[in-house]
Amino acid sequence: MFCAPTFHNKEQSAAGGREKGYIMINETYKEMLGKKSVIRQLSEFATARGKEIGYENVYDYSLGNPSVPVPEEFTKAMIEMLEQDSPMALHGYSPSLGNPEFKQAVADSLNRRFGMNYKASHIFPTSGAAGAIAHALRAITKPGDEVIVFAPFFPEYIPYVTGTGAEIVVVPADTKAFQINFDKFEELLTDKVKAVLINSPNNPTGIVYSEETVKRLADILRKKSQEFGYNIYLVSDEPYREILFAGVECPYPSKYYDYTLSCYSFSKSLSLPGERIGYVAANPADPDSETIVNMCGQISRGTGHNCPASIIQQACAKVIDMTSDLSVYETNMNILYKELTALGFEVVKPGGTFYIFPKALEEDSIAFCNKALKYDLVLVPADSFACPGYFRMAYCIDTDKVERSIAALKRFVKEEYGR
Amino acid sequence: MFCAPTFHNKEQSAAGGREKGYIMINETYKEMLGKKSVIRQLSEFATARGKEIGYENVYDYSLGNPSVPVPEEFTKAMIEMLEQDSPMALHGYSPSLGNPEFKQAVADSLNRRFGMNYKASHIFPTSGAAGAIAHALRAITKPGDEVIVFAPFFPEYIPYVTGTGAEIVVVPADTKAFQINFDKFEELLTDKVKAVLINSPNNPTGIVYSEETVKRLADILRKKSQEFGYNIYLVSDEPYREILFAGVECPYPSKYYDYTLSCYSFSKSLSLPGERIGYVAANPADPDSETIVNMCGQISRGTGHNCPASIIQQACAKVIDMTSDLSVYETNMNILYKELTALGFEVVKPGGTFYIFPKALEEDSIAFCNKALKYDLVLVPADSFACPGYFRMAYCIDTDKVERSIAALKRFVKEEYGR
Repeated sequence: MFCAPTFHNKEQSAAGGREKGYIMINETYKEMLGKKSVIRQLSEFATARGKEIGYENVYDYSLGNPSVPVPEEFTKAMIEMLEQDSPMALHGYSPSLGNPEFKQAVADSLNRRFGMNYKASHIFPTSGAAGAIAHALRAITKPGDEVIVFAPFFPEYIPYVTGTGAEIVVVPADTKAFQINFDKFEELLTDKVKAVLINSPNNPTGIVYSEETVKRLADILRKKSQEFGYNIYLVSDEPYREILFAGVECPYPSKYYDYTLSCYSFSKSLSLPGERIGYVAANPADPDSETIVNMCGQISRGTGHNCPASIIQQACAKVIDMTSDLSVYETNMNILYKELTALGFEVVKPGGTFYIFPKALEEDSIAFCNKALKYDLVLVPADSFACPGYFRMAYCIDTDKVERSIAALKRFVKEEYGR
Repeated sequence: MFCAPTFHNKEQSAAGGREKGYIMINETYKEMLGKKSVIRQLSEFATARGKEIGYENVYDYSLGNPSVPVPEEFTKAMIEMLEQDSPMALHGYSPSLGNPEFKQAVADSLNRRFGMNYKASHIFPTSGAAGAIAHALRAITKPGDEVIVFAPFFPEYIPYVTGTGAEIVVVPADTKAFQINFDKFEELLTDKVKAVLINSPNNPTGIVYSEETVKRLADILRKKSQEFGYNIYLVSDEPYREILFAGVECPYPSKYYDYTLSCYSFSKSLSLPGERIGYVAANPADPDSETIVNMCGQISRGTGHNCPASIIQQACAKVIDMTSDLSVYETNMNILYKELTALGFEVVKPGGTFYIFPKALEEDSIAFCNKALKYDLVLVPADSFACPGYFRMAYCIDTDKVERSIAALKRFVKEEYGR
């Protein structure tokens, strides 16, 4: 009936290699073309299958695309500005370091919420968290340096890191709790490492780092920084910071470690991933923090990225502390967590995001996810998150569909694994 | 009364050097911080002086910031979408190669206007022309390659080129007509050159390349491509394409040379520079054109830039063939051209843009522009455009101010140069 996608196991090697030969066009980028993202393949499968049987019947857990609308206040603010403001002020160039009102609104909000001391000059507006991480890493690494990430991790970290010329070093997963495998971390934290990249609440696990984890991480970074004679930077990717479930607190990493560059996106909290707006916030306790923000402005010149759209910066400033109604994600998580556990899946309960990360029912999670497609269940094998044997479900979909998917999940598990 | 800015003559060397040592943060970018753009310094001077005497009394010809509003139809389209469209469709992720309707609208418009055969798949949406040039150059060069530019040129070309790791090679100006100095060009066009970057209508001269110039350029590129055994790319920076004065035609370079990547921005034609929207259009006659567009998508992953804002792409698609009322620029040019010539300035009449580029009245154009500041005339010395001895006036200001500035200009010329 349908053709299952072929997964590439070696996707992660795609982005490396800066010194390849070439003829007419840059072979490094050309080579990347062959390696289609597994997530994108699955999403394309889901769309194609939807055309056959109706998309409402495809249990598409592949994409992390917010399923709830932007707050009405954002839309109202946009319309009001378009109706009343001078078009030149609204659509004119932002200063090269970003719209001052937006920067001030971000600083004030972070100070209020996390007891920080940011000024506008510590905030650099970017094209989403992607732009934030790419800028932060360029500011603090040079080609040949190492950047540590923790498995499982978002596969786009690879081009962000290798795009700077640095190398990515992967700490194997702590599959018990999906906190940090500290033994392996300390082993890999050599004096070639200039930055450590974390993501809590986490994509793909949905896990939030505990205060204990963040404190221990900060202690190690301080100790090793002293030993190495330079400050190791913590790059904290925080697009899911606002999607937290009942009773879960998410420690703000910069509060625990001064040399933190917090990378944020409004994509998930305000449900506007297409508008490409986020920021880097450099901790004022770092004497280089304002220099780093200024450097980000210089980095933008070379990549041609510049500021996020002016009107979007201005509108976000007006709704800075708001979020979309994010409650559906917790509802969906509770349904899935209960059913998955009942079906015998090994799974750690998410503390936030819209992801859950169970262990597959066979060692080969690619085979597992391929079998699931027969039941119109689109699950993402965790091989591309550097954590084979697991799979990710992105439950940013209607609760009704989550509920209907349970029957398919039960049939899949029974027919394929006899449970 | 005021403190004149100090100009840095060596600004152009700022962006080079990839292999500098560093301690904690990347020294290449840190070093760039010291070198403030002359244009920005002058603009800051104008703002500060405006606070003293009223900005209406500062004849600020420093910045190329459009002075006319966006077309009403753009504002209406934005409001209509915000009121009627699904927020998820409006603000959701664009596909990684851009919004399909925007790409199709661009392709159709270029085909209609220039007799081309673009499909949506030949168009890559970018963050303005800056993003377009940065992506195009990354696709077709590798570190160590050379990219040719023609003096005088927009100083941001330096970070765009050096940001890819390529080296910039400057062809000296044809100061007679500000077309192309072909003798010098052929001399510098060695087999290290992988791309040639042009800009017509031109910033800073306001000059439009004649059809003869474009044809001759194309002929040389074809001849040399054959000789070298690879296709030299023409990267054509075209943000001023729509600002043309009476009787002037601007040949579309891609029509004359297949291996052209046209880099566009809606900044000037629609007066929305802050919204950061433009594109790369790859000529379908180049067998690699679609590959290059796909490569741009991969390049974006590493720089973290991704697409321009989703709502801006959708709104631009709806007003694709419109422009702001650009007639004020021609009015201003005619006033300035007449008065400058009457005052004895040597100046080539602009064919478009909102720039004019006269020869200074002394050899040292920095000294000349510093003297002009005493008369509240903010002129930009062309040293940073690699054309010392000249200066740029950006006349994207009210006609009233242009008229009032003439008295100051006359006083300046009389008191300082006795004319």
